[in-house]
Amino acid sequence: MSRVVVLTGGVGGAKLVLGLMKVCPPQEVTAIVNTGDDFRHLGLAVSPDIDTLLYTLSGKANASQGWGREGESWSFMDALKSLGGEDWFLLGDGDLALHVLRSQLLAKGQTLSTVTARFAAAWGIELSIMPMSDDPVATHLATDEGHLSFQRYFVERRCAPAVQAIHFEGAEAAAPAPGVIDAITDPDIRAILIAPSNPWLSVDPILAVPGIRDALAAAKAPVVAVSPIVGGQAVKGPTTKLMAELGLALTNHSIANHYAGVIDGLLIDGRDDATGLPIEFAVTDTLMKTLEDRERVGRAVLALADRIAG
Amino acid sequence: MSRVVVLTGGVGGAKLVLGLMKVCPPQEVTAIVNTGDDFRHLGLAVSPDIDTLLYTLSGKANASQGWGREGESWSFMDALKSLGGEDWFLLGDGDLALHVLRSQLLAKGQTLSTVTARFAAAWGIELSIMPMSDDPVATHLATDEGHLSFQRYFVERRCAPAVQAIHFEGAEAAAPAPGVIDAITDPDIRAILIAPSNPWLSVDPILAVPGIRDALAAAKAPVVAVSPIVGGQAVKGPTTKLMAELGLALTNHSIANHYAGVIDGLLIDGRDDATGLPIEFAVTDTLMKTLEDRERVGRAVLALADRIAG
Repeated sequence: MSRVVVLTGGVGGAKLVLGLMKVCPPQEVTAIVNTGDDFRHLGLAVSPDIDTLLYTLSGKANASQGWGREGESWSFMDALKSLGGEDWFLLGDGDLALHVLRSQLLAKGQTLSTVTARFAAAWGIELSIMPMSDDPVATHLATDEGHLSFQRYFVERRCAPAVQAIHFEGAEAAAPAPGVIDAITDPDIRAILIAPSNPWLSVDPILAVPGIRDALAAAKAPVVAVSPIVGGQAVKGPTTKLMAELGLALTNHSIANHYAGVIDGLLIDGRDDATGLPIEFAVTDTLMKTLEDRERVGRAVLALADRIAG
Repeated sequence: MSRVVVLTGGVGGAKLVLGLMKVCPPQEVTAIVNTGDDFRHLGLAVSPDIDTLLYTLSGKANASQGWGREGESWSFMDALKSLGGEDWFLLGDGDLALHVLRSQLLAKGQTLSTVTARFAAAWGIELSIMPMSDDPVATHLATDEGHLSFQRYFVERRCAPAVQAIHFEGAEAAAPAPGVIDAITDPDIRAILIAPSNPWLSVDPILAVPGIRDALAAAKAPVVAVSPIVGGQAVKGPTTKLMAELGLALTNHSIANHYAGVIDGLLIDGRDDATGLPIEFAVTDTLMKTLEDRERVGRAVLALADRIAG
């Protein structure tokens, strides 16, 4: 009963997964990762959330920058700019290796699952990292500036456009990646966690893959989310602005309502009011700045899951 | 009567072209470049001879190394190795920009000619650089170790296998790139030069593209080659070893015989015997170490062409 599954997006999710690795045997953790942010850039297959997890778990992440590799160099971008290539999305020299090799292996017919497992193994990562699907799913946004793909909205336009609706292109036709449903429905599992990633942009794409939401509902193990709200704000990224644009209060009620039917419990921050929260919950300091913070949140969310499991 | 066309391969050819730029108006020079060395590596379109020319003419070449960019960094290769990617062919971080952008533009349906012209313009190169063909032509070698593609032979095996025969896959079906035949047959041209690149590996692929050899034979302008032989040796690369394996004497006679029917004159080095050379020739110091050397060879080959033109 030690296996743990975690649904995760980018930076915030990677922090929780790193914390879980300190409190669980890494071989017992399976991360199911959002690939709705994936896109082709310069012809290369870029998987931002998978890469953030690979960098974070192998100790290569640039923590201060929040994305990419520590100690990265930028000769490629400099040369690309001198040739008039697209420079709105930054690809570091070392980071390029993931995208070039992934593109090569996908072109040879390998799946994103296989490629991801290979990269994780090459970097000594012991937990299982699974993309939510091997099929392309692309998060798109209807905004006051028109239709935008995720990276155009997030990176190029820095989340400035007001979001009216979100949809996940290709989701209806996508299948869960091999192992995803088995991991969720494994009867010997201790907990299924949802990382404090953006529920609308990073977790919803995972839930949009046919079969995953049903598997979560049917799972024997408790499903527990870590709320991305801390002190009435989202910790980072576009969550605060996005929730306002979607007409949602910046509260844990909104998070609980959003995950209704999926989660059995919510871990919330001590700064936020829990009055009348329509779900089982536990309270801790959920801000994850240090490795100790990450361990604490990992322990707290597992403790809540264990309490729900009874 | 100032236009000059030069057929060229890699490093040695780029030296001559650089010399020509000092003695002719660059806008009046057209370089027709071997693409038989081109290949897909890691899924990227690599054009080694075009790139050597781009780097040389824009002042970016690593002169001591003989290939690639000056001041290159290697974060990509380090990361690629850590992921278990192929590392027998080195791609520098800055160098990658050419290959990634070229691959992207080719995938969008642009031709190699168009992409090459765009890169040259972006880097302020005023002469015309034309690939010999926009169609794929690949130099392959039959060796005592079996069949090898050019880069496997040249880079991975460092020319160690004994070459028995050379062929240019795709050449029969290839068309000269737009402008190539017009440049050669332009009646107002001063000279057509063949750079001191390897005649078998770097110039023959150009001559193998249907139409180019006939255009050279029909050209009004004199066709003059710079011999790659200096003091009974080839200056660099596998020419010396290759000629021995093909049963050829390391002499200018062999070069003259090889280009029989194509050239009207041969510029040879003063260290080599010219007795009985069955072609018009001129003598200079053809070793190109400094920029002054390159200018001298450029002047000498044009003077020979002018003498033949009468």
